[in-house]
Amino acid sequence: MESIKIGLLGFGTVGKGTYDVLKRNQEEIKRRAGRGIEVTRIAVRDVAKARGGLGDTGASIPVDTDGAALVDDPAVDIVVETIGGTGIARELVLRAIRNGKHVVTANKALLAVHGGEIFEAASQRGVMVAFEAAVAGGVPIIKALREGLTANRIGWIAGIINGTTNFILSSMRDRGVDFATALADAQRLGYAEADPTFDIEGVDAAHKVTIMSAIAFGVPVQFDRAHVEGISKLDSIDIRYAEELGYRIKLLGIARRAQKGIELRVHPTLIPSKRLIANVEGAMNAIVVQGDAVGSTLYYGKGAGAEPTASAVVADLVDVTRLHTADPNNRVPHLAFQPDRLSDTPILPIDEITSSYYLRLRVADVTGVLANITRILADRDISIDALLQKESEDVSVDGRSETDIVLVTHETIEKNMNAAIVQIEALDTVKGAVTKLRMESMN
Amino acid sequence: MESIKIGLLGFGTVGKGTYDVLKRNQEEIKRRAGRGIEVTRIAVRDVAKARGGLGDTGASIPVDTDGAALVDDPAVDIVVETIGGTGIARELVLRAIRNGKHVVTANKALLAVHGGEIFEAASQRGVMVAFEAAVAGGVPIIKALREGLTANRIGWIAGIINGTTNFILSSMRDRGVDFATALADAQRLGYAEADPTFDIEGVDAAHKVTIMSAIAFGVPVQFDRAHVEGISKLDSIDIRYAEELGYRIKLLGIARRAQKGIELRVHPTLIPSKRLIANVEGAMNAIVVQGDAVGSTLYYGKGAGAEPTASAVVADLVDVTRLHTADPNNRVPHLAFQPDRLSDTPILPIDEITSSYYLRLRVADVTGVLANITRILADRDISIDALLQKESEDVSVDGRSETDIVLVTHETIEKNMNAAIVQIEALDTVKGAVTKLRMESMN
Repeated sequence: MESIKIGLLGFGTVGKGTYDVLKRNQEEIKRRAGRGIEVTRIAVRDVAKARGGLGDTGASIPVDTDGAALVDDPAVDIVVETIGGTGIARELVLRAIRNGKHVVTANKALLAVHGGEIFEAASQRGVMVAFEAAVAGGVPIIKALREGLTANRIGWIAGIINGTTNFILSSMRDRGVDFATALADAQRLGYAEADPTFDIEGVDAAHKVTIMSAIAFGVPVQFDRAHVEGISKLDSIDIRYAEELGYRIKLLGIARRAQKGIELRVHPTLIPSKRLIANVEGAMNAIVVQGDAVGSTLYYGKGAGAEPTASAVVADLVDVTRLHTADPNNRVPHLAFQPDRLSDTPILPIDEITSSYYLRLRVADVTGVLANITRILADRDISIDALLQKESEDVSVDGRSETDIVLVTHETIEKNMNAAIVQIEALDTVKGAVTKLRMESMN
Repeated sequence: MESIKIGLLGFGTVGKGTYDVLKRNQEEIKRRAGRGIEVTRIAVRDVAKARGGLGDTGASIPVDTDGAALVDDPAVDIVVETIGGTGIARELVLRAIRNGKHVVTANKALLAVHGGEIFEAASQRGVMVAFEAAVAGGVPIIKALREGLTANRIGWIAGIINGTTNFILSSMRDRGVDFATALADAQRLGYAEADPTFDIEGVDAAHKVTIMSAIAFGVPVQFDRAHVEGISKLDSIDIRYAEELGYRIKLLGIARRAQKGIELRVHPTLIPSKRLIANVEGAMNAIVVQGDAVGSTLYYGKGAGAEPTASAVVADLVDVTRLHTADPNNRVPHLAFQPDRLSDTPILPIDEITSSYYLRLRVADVTGVLANITRILADRDISIDALLQKESEDVSVDGRSETDIVLVTHETIEKNMNAAIVQIEALDTVKGAVTKLRMESMN
């Protein structure tokens, strides 16, 4: 059978990785797919650079700067979008769909923000949009969630889905350095970009967990409803105190089915150190999915990089190659649920989520201070699970010594905790703002 | 659309679990599959017991003892085989296939031993045989290997794929008890069967890794070529010494692409303690898959139990529901590779595998003993990576004191190591047999 023809938009890390993997493993892939898969056209900004990356073996592949011509080319069967961003990528993806072409993309921002529009257009036109590479690189988490766990009512998903921040958190813990130092190191080693905002402020993780929430719960992708907190304000002292209490701090993307709606949030989170996911170090990714039948399952691997991402892109290409001639009813719905069976369960505002909390307070080292704090919490039905009072390490302000108190609470609604914190901060004996971090038992 | 009709063979743990999950999550599953999935007929040995398990809500489902009539019933679309074993299960599965029915099974023994015959018959008849539940319960490892990692040339797979033995090994380590005690505890707690042979001797794990090897490397299922060693002879002192050296002992199922063929083996294995998989405790399962593009990925979850297994069976049912009307060319091949593109790469005999080794020797506590041993190893190009000499703990035989020496070697071919061990055991100063365990760096 003739090879299926791929048009590649972009030839950066992911684009070149995809080309390289398809080339190197072409025989193996053909033995599986039953058909060759071949890059036959490329559109890029920098033609000369792409030519260099293609080398002699790819010298016959046409490369130009005209993305529109590529998605209009009747000889292209599947368009692989590796441009990134939500501008030209969105236009070309929608145009490819209108042309009846199947699309494979690694673009989480595009899908988290414009997924509704894109999947709707694809369903109308009867084409596939595949995006395994958009979450956790080469880890086949989209397929696991969408197909492997399809029997389950999913309870929650919690994942380390941004390698940059996990690398930074790992080095803050291992080497006891502060955030700025760890970030600079990550940049030097190529784990963080020159402008690291999207990673360190949690935006990238929020894109990914938004996509997963839609697949898990059968709701539309709603990035604008996600609560997004990064790690740039994280103090290394909290990493140390968490450790003393038996926890690790990870930037988690969390999607949970709660009673009144769905929680969708990204923030630094304390996890018991003994959990497998707490031990995921460096730039690695891992996602825990809890389903009512299967219990907790975990998926781990490289979340970024040329070839891990290409692994996911090519897996999608094989899926599309198999099913592009099939009745669309035989295909798995883009977001796991039939498009006419989505749920309007709301995404809860962050005030309405339920969590247990880690609180760190700087207090005057005088008697009665703890009693006042615990009374405020007790009045709001917030019970304390653990307490750590640090010896006043010669900290003294205006001649009075001060000390750190760390509290771990049981679960409560966030707005209740926030109200308690306002009261606590109003106490004379409490100095400055209370540091609040959320916790997950991952049970 | 009308519901798809399931005939259930057997109503034990897996059969009842499947029924329960389909019933409880019927709405959720229908929202995904686009179609209801319903158990409409059951064949069991003990009708009264099944009736009890079905309760009032399932009172209208016909139950009898006639498996043949079920697989012949034109009203049944998919047969779910949960009988187990290779006798009647094989007959009924083959008969169902001949009748043009799709089959879902959790039966690893059947597929590891008779997979060739069954998949051949299914391909001829154009029906699907799905078996996600056969390996690692609810963890969607078959789908990950077969579809999610399809871009990769797989290097190796290594997995904790038997919960009973992992539970026993965990308690031997945690509580310092010997194998017999840990086994008795596991039996008391329901983690081991009254006759635990299949689990503790590694047969169950070998069935599972045999199936995975076929999917990973595109070779036929060849259970008879697997090297199978269990944990019943494992001495708890080796667990302790391994710990001191920074390793955990796990029963691994390993399939590796080597230069001259494929390694297919199950045996207790030392793994560096810091690896994620080394920290998989209790009855949990985890599999690491290494692919050339994706690197190492890990999949973790419950490997047994009614609902975790049912989770996998129902996922298969949804897959089959989607694709049963499709052109067989649109389906994923049973064993990932097109049946006419299998490879005849041989499974290597255990003598030909490459591994690093842990050796424990009891030696006379006299000078020169170590020199003799290391010379034998050096002569065979086996280099030593670590050495542990235990103080002679008042061990004395015939008035002479003895001591344990533990060696960790670099990689060599097994037959070379075995020959060295024969020489070492012939030394006067070495008392009794050398204990040999294989190691995996899991890199």
